[in-house]
Amino acid sequence: MVLEVCKRPVKPVSLKPGMTVGELVSEMGDTGFGAGRLARAVEIYERMIKDGALILLGFAGAMVPAGMKKIIVEMIRRKMVHIIVSTGANMVHDLLEAFGGAHYKGVGTADDRQLYKWQIDRIFDVFVPEEYFKGYFDNPMLSILDEIARETRGTSLSSADLMREIGGKINDENSIVRSAFEHKVPIFVPAIQDSCIGLLLWEAAAKYNRTPPIIDVVKELNQFFSAVKDAEKTGAIILGGGVPKNYIFQVAFEFKKPYNYVIQITMDRPEPGGLSGATLEEAVSWGKVGEEAWKVQVISDTTICLPILVAAVMERISER
Amino acid sequence: MVLEVCKRPVKPVSLKPGMTVGELVSEMGDTGFGAGRLARAVEIYERMIKDGALILLGFAGAMVPAGMKKIIVEMIRRKMVHIIVSTGANMVHDLLEAFGGAHYKGVGTADDRQLYKWQIDRIFDVFVPEEYFKGYFDNPMLSILDEIARETRGTSLSSADLMREIGGKINDENSIVRSAFEHKVPIFVPAIQDSCIGLLLWEAAAKYNRTPPIIDVVKELNQFFSAVKDAEKTGAIILGGGVPKNYIFQVAFEFKKPYNYVIQITMDRPEPGGLSGATLEEAVSWGKVGEEAWKVQVISDTTICLPILVAAVMERISER
Amino acid sequence: MVLEVCKRPVKPVSLKPGMTVGELVSEMGDTGFGAGRLARAVEIYERMIKDGALILLGFAGAMVPAGMKKIIVEMIRRKMVHIIVSTGANMVHDLLEAFGGAHYKGVGTADDRQLYKWQIDRIFDVFVPEEYFKGYFDNPMLSILDEIARETRGTSLSSADLMREIGGKINDENSIVRSAFEHKVPIFVPAIQDSCIGLLLWEAAAKYNRTPPIIDVVKELNQFFSAVKDAEKTGAIILGGGVPKNYIFQVAFEFKKPYNYVIQITMDRPEPGGLSGATLEEAVSWGKVGEEAWKVQVISDTTICLPILVAAVMERISER
Amino acid sequence: MVLEVCKRPVKPVSLKPGMTVGELVSEMGDTGFGAGRLARAVEIYERMIKDGALILLGFAGAMVPAGMKKIIVEMIRRKMVHIIVSTGANMVHDLLEAFGGAHYKGVGTADDRQLYKWQIDRIFDVFVPEEYFKGYFDNPMLSILDEIARETRGTSLSSADLMREIGGKINDENSIVRSAFEHKVPIFVPAIQDSCIGLLLWEAAAKYNRTPPIIDVVKELNQFFSAVKDAEKTGAIILGGGVPKNYIFQVAFEFKKPYNYVIQITMDRPEPGGLSGATLEEAVSWGKVGEEAWKVQVISDTTICLPILVAAVMERISER
Repeated sequence: MVLEVCKRPVKPVSLKPGMTVGELVSEMGDTGFGAGRLARAVEIYERMIKDGALILLGFAGAMVPAGMKKIIVEMIRRKMVHIIVSTGANMVHDLLEAFGGAHYKGVGTADDRQLYKWQIDRIFDVFVPEEYFKGYFDNPMLSILDEIARETRGTSLSSADLMREIGGKINDENSIVRSAFEHKVPIFVPAIQDSCIGLLLWEAAAKYNRTPPIIDVVKELNQFFSAVKDAEKTGAIILGGGVPKNYIFQVAFEFKKPYNYVIQITMDRPEPGGLSGATLEEAVSWGKVGEEAWKVQVISDTTICLPILVAAVMERISER
Repeated sequence: MVLEVCKRPVKPVSLKPGMTVGELVSEMGDTGFGAGRLARAVEIYERMIKDGALILLGFAGAMVPAGMKKIIVEMIRRKMVHIIVSTGANMVHDLLEAFGGAHYKGVGTADDRQLYKWQIDRIFDVFVPEEYFKGYFDNPMLSILDEIARETRGTSLSSADLMREIGGKINDENSIVRSAFEHKVPIFVPAIQDSCIGLLLWEAAAKYNRTPPIIDVVKELNQFFSAVKDAEKTGAIILGGGVPKNYIFQVAFEFKKPYNYVIQITMDRPEPGGLSGATLEEAVSWGKVGEEAWKVQVISDTTICLPILVAAVMERISER
Repeated sequence: MVLEVCKRPVKPVSLKPGMTVGELVSEMGDTGFGAGRLARAVEIYERMIKDGALILLGFAGAMVPAGMKKIIVEMIRRKMVHIIVSTGANMVHDLLEAFGGAHYKGVGTADDRQLYKWQIDRIFDVFVPEEYFKGYFDNPMLSILDEIARETRGTSLSSADLMREIGGKINDENSIVRSAFEHKVPIFVPAIQDSCIGLLLWEAAAKYNRTPPIIDVVKELNQFFSAVKDAEKTGAIILGGGVPKNYIFQVAFEFKKPYNYVIQITMDRPEPGGLSGATLEEAVSWGKVGEEAWKVQVISDTTICLPILVAAVMERISER
Repeated sequence: MVLEVCKRPVKPVSLKPGMTVGELVSEMGDTGFGAGRLARAVEIYERMIKDGALILLGFAGAMVPAGMKKIIVEMIRRKMVHIIVSTGANMVHDLLEAFGGAHYKGVGTADDRQLYKWQIDRIFDVFVPEEYFKGYFDNPMLSILDEIARETRGTSLSSADLMREIGGKINDENSIVRSAFEHKVPIFVPAIQDSCIGLLLWEAAAKYNRTPPIIDVVKELNQFFSAVKDAEKTGAIILGGGVPKNYIFQVAFEFKKPYNYVIQITMDRPEPGGLSGATLEEAVSWGKVGEEAWKVQVISDTTICLPILVAAVMERISER
């Protein structure tokens, strides 16, 4: 019986100078802990692409300020993701860069009172001057939102409609919002009012004394459900947790249609009971993740694991 | 110079049988690490009540299934909280209990495939039979939502309006939703579509072939901002992180009106860069938390710290 | 079948002003997550005392600087612990206070370069002036160690022998080392050279040009094994992880004698694979923890949970 | 002033199929959070090699069972590490493999009662049949230890002496213990009694009725201090925390000789106050890490980060 559960020996990672990311991941394939899980994530991602699954990406945490946006753009372009569910903040920071703003490498142990005096906003070890929100986000966005309000007057919009409209009005090939527009990848932002986009909807309404576009919650669910429910196979890649994780999982719960492939990369933990850190096993009990699903949860920093995951899958796919 | 920063010695905790929670917290007052921080949280909470601050509660994580709802109800009744920002899930589970359902003590290491077969949904070590969602939530809620749709036809609602309407139609003195209704404490649920309430809005619209109430995002922001912006002093108690934390903080950012008192209890960590685990120091750089604010972040389990925090504050206040 | 696993409903915590710690823990008894686990820990600790188990305490992390020492002293006096396995550091800080030194409440976000200039050593948010190590530790300890070297010349000592000898030569009723000496509770410090006590053994040998006492590793194991192996029932309370956790567990592994009761309070997590954060379930596979053991792992801050645990058990025991 | 702290923009990671690990790390160089820190670690490691620093490796957590041993062997061979401080467990598992044993890929959610019945010991998601401890560790080690006892009779040994003696008596080019012996890299194991090596010292003494070699703690400190104290520049690479981190840092504290370069990879966190998760900033206050040291703490899974770190440094060095 021992033989049955002990048939695949751990094979120590062997390094060589100049090895590719894909080669490194292959070396991790027969190891334990995080390395083994990351290698498994690569295998699962490759599999969900190969099997033609509908791939949803949950996108939480300040991934854009940290420098992860071009990876998402690459995933969109290569059709490695079909639907995005994001926090508002990531979209805000993507747009801020699209309008000419930038984020800066700062330090994690900054003197925040001093930063406050300098009007620099800190996101762990990334800095953004507060005036950039005004110049590179509020100003261009106010006119875009007003344009959208004029064009859509009378019609309510889902958050995905809004993101698509915005995507059509900006020019930045490195922008997630723009790339998603071009490749018809919808971006759902279920808590859009919990971001500067929401704030501007409110500000625009006040400023232009115009009825703001109504962001319709039920319309959004309708669109999201329509996009997902008929897919033969579904895969989810969850970066962080939060609303995107729950939103992606609840469609499976609603339609009794568990995901076939799931990867989550997070640093949250299960014991405090929140969904963000809940195990994928737990999601099996709810029927959100299939009993026989290919699934893995990598407990490690997303900004480290996402580049490896995507680079390795790109390498494997382009080799085929 | 040493004297200046070393003037308050750590005083070891001294226990005695039968001591009150407040006495225990007093013993923790001169200690380090989590104990010192929890004692500080009690001091800050007492202070924000005494100073007449407007108190906002951010409420994330599966606090209701874990058994924390009566603490929130007590806080509402005793006017220890004035505005609630919650995930949808906590409201769903509060309503499920209000309609006669229950949660059960399970185990954290359950066999989730077996639970799936039994149709029992797991939330870490809490179980809920899936049929309860049907019998104790969907059915009563569908007719309540339809009633609301009929009553409000033509008017869009904020999530807080919706929660208030629901609160007016249920009977359960231990329910957060009901108590909030009775005591006029608004409950904002910024990602309401990311919950079974959202799902039912969608289902009700389909079932009754009726226009669902429009949940209006900008209206919600309007109400939230109106409720907060004129307060002389503001305090925030953040349980967990997620949308409630960001939503509570962004009003301070929008109006350049940093919180005067902030307590966060969380197990998330700052290094991965997400807002949930971000330090309160970081929030100072954004002007969300005041430079001179009374603030503390307790890195510990909320279900342990919240009861201590509230019990100790109740003890202190009732002593006055 | 649902009935079978769903028979104990979560009962929400109900608070009242002036409730005792024991009453609060009773309220936590029917809850989930950390609160339910902490209540379970109280139940298990009470049970191991009542059943007359040999109780081992693993003591890691800077518990003494944080202000936890009098709780340990209380546990010793009340015979709530029979054997201690500790890091060297906790013993160093206990002795430093016994010799007249102190720790101070500092801040967790101090400017460490400034502290370095001021010669203040930081332990998260606790400060200790570096001169205290000289005046309140090195000086008195050098002469004590030399005295011990003279008295024990020719005999090798285990770390527990050394701690007992030291305990006999100091006077401080609030000291763990002294109380353990008085109540014949052995303190094993398996990595004693990894602490200032080790450093002083080395310094004393150099200073007095005298052969230092030989701290004999095998002798220590002998004593530890003798103290544990014949106990009818064994219980372990693990604060943090590290060497004390492994050391306490390996005796069970060696003698195929799994612990009957285990409580661990820690913030470490299992996924990185280290023993400190390993689940108690994992220890079952090794035969370190019994299949039918009463066991619980509380994932929360020790400085918060330990006072509650011990206060509640003291309250329950004194009620009997 | 904004300009001064905002002069280095975050540059989003750009991927291409087949890129090398070193190229990926270069892309991470201008990012935030974990990715930026990992890139910084590569830079620091390269720098400490280039500057001829004495490099100490702290090695905790079950790194060998997870498959990390050949990376350490490679570091030894390429003179990328000069002194190792390890937990006993890692050495035990290295030897177990050297004597013909193996570890197996298991699962993190195994049924531990079943494993116990099958006598399979679990280390998170790695399995090891318990009989391997007997056949591939205890038996060969008992005779080796007895041989050492005979050869060294009358002399006490440090843990490093013992590891060197063992290294000289085994044959396995992939073994850390053997490679360290061949390349004269001392391995200090400060809590050697807290491992199966310690257990065997005890068992051997009983079995052969022979005085076991005395593992002398002060001798160990002497050797360790001699090896470190005269180095012009010192660098530390800490994997995990525990005794190895403290032991490596205390020599800097003892000799007022702060490390010039420090990298720590860990998932522990600072708030509970233990040294394992303490920030490197905190170590500056103690004079363990230099005020101007090149230092970085990567909060992420070691089994993922170590391979990237070493592969990238190997690539950079071999390019020179």
